Amino acid sequence: MSNENPLHAIMNADSVIFYGASNNPSTMGTFQCMHLIHGKYAGKVWPIHPKEETVLGIRAYRSAQEVPEVPELAVMVLPTRLVPEKMLECARKGVRRAIITSGGFKERGEEGRGLEEQIKSIAREHGMRFIGPNCIGVINAKKNLNVTFFPYLLGPGPMGLVSQSGTYVTQSLFHLEHMGMRYSKAMSLGNEADIDIVEGLEYLGEDPDTKAIAIYIEGIRRGRRFMEVARAVSRKKPIVAYFVGGTEGGARSGMSHTGAMGGSDLIHDAVFKQCGMVRAPTIEAMYDWAWAFATQPIPKGRRIAIVSHSGGPVTSMADASSRANLILPVFSDPTQKKLREFVPATGSCANPVDLTYNMTPDAMTNTIPNIVYDSGEVDAVLIHGIMIGGFLRGVKREAPDSKLVDEDDNALKLFAEAFHKDLVALSHKKGCTVLTSSFGDRSDEAIDYVMRNNIPVYPSPERAVYALRAMIQYSEWLAGHS
Amino acid sequence: MSNENPLHAIMNADSVIFYGASNNPSTMGTFQCMHLIHGKYAGKVWPIHPKEETVLGIRAYRSAQEVPEVPELAVMVLPTRLVPEKMLECARKGVRRAIITSGGFKERGEEGRGLEEQIKSIAREHGMRFIGPNCIGVINAKKNLNVTFFPYLLGPGPMGLVSQSGTYVTQSLFHLEHMGMRYSKAMSLGNEADIDIVEGLEYLGEDPDTKAIAIYIEGIRRGRRFMEVARAVSRKKPIVAYFVGGTEGGARSGMSHTGAMGGSDLIHDAVFKQCGMVRAPTIEAMYDWAWAFATQPIPKGRRIAIVSHSGGPVTSMADASSRANLILPVFSDPTQKKLREFVPATGSCANPVDLTYNMTPDAMTNTIPNIVYDSGEVDAVLIHGIMIGGFLRGVKREAPDSKLVDEDDNALKLFAEAFHKDLVALSHKKGCTVLTSSFGDRSDEAIDYVMRNNIPVYPSPERAVYALRAMIQYSEWLAGHS
Repeated sequence: MSNENPLHAIMNADSVIFYGASNNPSTMGTFQCMHLIHGKYAGKVWPIHPKEETVLGIRAYRSAQEVPEVPELAVMVLPTRLVPEKMLECARKGVRRAIITSGGFKERGEEGRGLEEQIKSIAREHGMRFIGPNCIGVINAKKNLNVTFFPYLLGPGPMGLVSQSGTYVTQSLFHLEHMGMRYSKAMSLGNEADIDIVEGLEYLGEDPDTKAIAIYIEGIRRGRRFMEVARAVSRKKPIVAYFVGGTEGGARSGMSHTGAMGGSDLIHDAVFKQCGMVRAPTIEAMYDWAWAFATQPIPKGRRIAIVSHSGGPVTSMADASSRANLILPVFSDPTQKKLREFVPATGSCANPVDLTYNMTPDAMTNTIPNIVYDSGEVDAVLIHGIMIGGFLRGVKREAPDSKLVDEDDNALKLFAEAFHKDLVALSHKKGCTVLTSSFGDRSDEAIDYVMRNNIPVYPSPERAVYALRAMIQYSEWLAGHS
Repeated sequence: MSNENPLHAIMNADSVIFYGASNNPSTMGTFQCMHLIHGKYAGKVWPIHPKEETVLGIRAYRSAQEVPEVPELAVMVLPTRLVPEKMLECARKGVRRAIITSGGFKERGEEGRGLEEQIKSIAREHGMRFIGPNCIGVINAKKNLNVTFFPYLLGPGPMGLVSQSGTYVTQSLFHLEHMGMRYSKAMSLGNEADIDIVEGLEYLGEDPDTKAIAIYIEGIRRGRRFMEVARAVSRKKPIVAYFVGGTEGGARSGMSHTGAMGGSDLIHDAVFKQCGMVRAPTIEAMYDWAWAFATQPIPKGRRIAIVSHSGGPVTSMADASSRANLILPVFSDPTQKKLREFVPATGSCANPVDLTYNMTPDAMTNTIPNIVYDSGEVDAVLIHGIMIGGFLRGVKREAPDSKLVDEDDNALKLFAEAFHKDLVALSHKKGCTVLTSSFGDRSDEAIDYVMRNNIPVYPSPERAVYALRAMIQYSEWLAGHS
């Protein structure tokens, strides 16, 4: 790993000087600092406050000068006009990395632009590198370093994120939790007065904990360098780009958000393709696809199997697969014969495999997916209908006294594992790409088990198909570029 | 309402004779019957069982002959080969409506086709009308009549569903609950040996409880009549169609699912457009859009406002709006001046309105949406970021002893109402189309409040935009056809 990328020192900082936290719960800075103090971060934290003796239960200092060591990272959540002076204070203390959360700079017109130039020149003069201003900062999940506004409680994962929006690092954590997704590292870069998405991409490209990268883009400032880096990173790991600056509305909004200049949608589209990046049309697709890339083997071809108890969802998957130019081979007679043992007469073995109902409880999840992949006739398996306790809990809610349902939650957890462990092995041991969907959520034991074992469970059948299409697009680019 | 449509008697049946329930929890029929017996259905239920004295705690009968009255509806969840004889038994008893859940008919080849012809001719001879075979049946939420496999616990709502898939009536209830959506009536029609989607559409078109209709289609059997009915219904209420039979994969899967014949995607597309139906590309979009139609006033024009605390999501919304040909006017100076009082200097008033953070807690939800709609400058308002307790609960999980967060759940419920009641009035009293999004879920008090008050809360910003586009497409068709 190159130590020259300034993000390395930021993401691995063992001590933080924090400007803008207080004991007042209504300020953003207080929450940002709280994660460092009350979360599992093992580094040192020195809050700076003009009056308070302690902040969030630990000693506060009046200025950087008072702090007993040289902090490895400064975080500033201050009124705009105070930032230059505190930057200088940090520089003089010897701090060489900073995150500036404060907004009100370039994105808010002339005066702000002047202030932004000031902090840039202070940084340049003192060899400081910084993220922001107008950003929410970074999360390093492994190190429990989280300087953002939101608590990060998901644990370390394989998906990295570079973002020009703070919300997509923080508020969207609710979405990630719901989807079973976890960050390796995530960063919000704001106005990119210094560190920009090019360095962000380069850093995650080098980061061994990051298996796939999601990138949210309002505008690209260094086009040529961006392309060089993106192309090099794409050879090593997949990048999913969500670009919103290519329309009148998106460009105008981006300008007022982070001062980003949008640009031609078509040109960006061509750039992404050339660089082996997969472009996602929505924020959901960005996470969906990056998570598939981060957790699943890249499929070696376009041949897929679809397996479910449910005729509607398999038909939705089959229709979406045709639209995505995937191949749904009719299984050979020997394979259909093997399947028939597990599929009732009212069901179908041809592909899609539609069980119509359970004969053995794990036929859909353990047995059939392994049979069809072992046949050599497909490169990936899509399954709809991961679920175990959700239905039963519904029945209990409707008829609490009914004796029909007597499994307790613990039994359901054991069943969840037993009924899905060969599916997990199919993906992570045999190397089959497995994507699933379910209308249930993580309160269901089976969904939770499958998610925790890094197999995506999408909330609808088509989203599994479109994630697979993205993987195949990358797989085909890679084949032409290695 | 026309009493001639056979669905009227099925949806309003006050007594049910049930074949295929037992005291064995592993059969589908048992669960189907249980909702009638242990749910809130007020009608009479007569289970038929060859041996048991009681089924699910109530008296069982050996045959229809034994049942003391003429049942208004028969439900059959029997082995395929038994269906014709039980149909005849019911016909002789005087039963005139039936739902046949059993599969193994036309969709499974020659022998099944013969059996299907048998039940058709029995029905014809005795003036019986039936749904199925190979279907999951119906839900009438107001009447608590639910003969499907899944419990329906969501309460009555304004969205109707006609489906050629049982899963999209039942398993997707988890999705509906998560999204705050509720059915008026829903039906799974299976092989459509008798009652078909044309009659389903016609029935929901006449049903006063249904404000908008979703329809899942694998293949249309009576094309000409379908178009006549769809065009007439579209003049009264919106129809969102999700058609999956237009590709090789979709058509093949549909054929093995319900024996449906798919057909040209382009022709179906043209038919839907001509009939004023809005075509959804995915099952999520079908529900998203039908729910917007069912709950929100149809917008009078394409001019929209976007309001949020979050720069990323507003930029996503703005970009998607441009792609959807919506108009995002820059607000007039007087309107911007009014807004500035509620938007900090670091935020933007132009449209999108980006608050960057809360100044007054309900500026984003109550105040600003009303100001921008009252200005007359927009026809609809999109808001991202509905949330109140979600963030605080995260903080509590991270730092249980912190004094930063002291609101209890009850306070949060009261805040949720106070901070969103003018938004609810904006939609339901002033007639403004309001669609929102949030990364949180219904465990958040604000999201739950907004959902319960029939304002959609989509899980991502773009889904709100695309639902609005669907509404405008219908609004413009309607303007040209009235």
